[in-house]
Amino acid sequence: MKKLEDRILAEGKVYDGGILKVGSFLNQQIDSDLMLEIGEEIKRLYLDAGVTKILTVEASGIAIALAAGMSMHVPVVFAKKNESLNIQSSVYSASVFSYTHQKLYNIVVSEEYLNENDRILLVDDFLANGEALRGLIELVSQANATLCGCAVAVEKGFQHGGDGLRAEGIRVEALALVESMKPGEIIFR
Amino acid sequence: MKKLEDRILAEGKVYDGGILKVGSFLNQQIDSDLMLEIGEEIKRLYLDAGVTKILTVEASGIAIALAAGMSMHVPVVFAKKNESLNIQSSVYSASVFSYTHQKLYNIVVSEEYLNENDRILLVDDFLANGEALRGLIELVSQANATLCGCAVAVEKGFQHGGDGLRAEGIRVEALALVESMKPGEIIFR
Repeated sequence: MKKLEDRILAEGKVYDGGILKVGSFLNQQIDSDLMLEIGEEIKRLYLDAGVTKILTVEASGIAIALAAGMSMHVPVVFAKKNESLNIQSSVYSASVFSYTHQKLYNIVVSEEYLNENDRILLVDDFLANGEALRGLIELVSQANATLCGCAVAVEKGFQHGGDGLRAEGIRVEALALVESMKPGEIIFR
Repeated sequence: MKKLEDRILAEGKVYDGGILKVGSFLNQQIDSDLMLEIGEEIKRLYLDAGVTKILTVEASGIAIALAAGMSMHVPVVFAKKNESLNIQSSVYSASVFSYTHQKLYNIVVSEEYLNENDRILLVDDFLANGEALRGLIELVSQANATLCGCAVAVEKGFQHGGDGLRAEGIRVEALALVESMKPGEIIFR
């Protein structure tokens, strides 16, 4: 998506450790008009996939998931992050390792909101190592729902999480796929 | 907003301790079409207020704030919650007491995203004691920005946070204002 790539080139900031900051338009400040177009693009990509529900994880995934949900007229469910090990029995849960924060956390969704009739599109703002998406895929699996695929705003291709998922036959669409980056230079695949 | 009230009557669940669960359509599962209408209603209410930016707090405020931002074509900023006492110098921060979780946390926004030229509309999903909105008002004040008012999806009128803000001359609009509730009975003001 050219408009997103242009915006990353104009405002994205690269820091050591593979960090790409896009806080001025994608999180934590969100350009609503750009988000509207991101939602439309995700709708276009998954038009024929029969998606019945979108699943994301709080907090920075919620905006893009809602944008896609509004365009596609399907409900959005967000998994909650939970550092506690006490998981109630009436939830689906998966553990996710955050490389950014170097800690393990749980993501949970009430069983009420996912079931075997759902055809799920996973949506998130970033895809790096793929840990968050793998956690969401685990929730979809626990619910016996069908996974239609994944859509992310920005994929960091050099961290290969997306490549691993694609190699397993999972459809992964990135609106901007960063092949390499260093301060002052961002190259898209 | 009649459609929201009807939905609360149909699906809202009242628990002891003044808890109203609306997780099936407002959080953590979000009805995208309802959210679109909520955004339009907030736009209608604040059409002439000259709003340039919407401010909310993660995580459950993000969806409704984005819906309003998309309708009004203004950016959305969300404050992050932070349990740490180590606040960087380049952020606005305020402490908020959560009655639900019985603990104090910080909300922070980078100074980059709020300034004295901004005319801010505060948006959140729930208004109870008003602690979260008061924290956001503190951030607006630190940025020397102008506060246009607040819009919330559901106000729990019996907890009087909204009444306190209105008594101070702050505009507070609730799309559904619950006057009283008990299991099986919800009455709107």
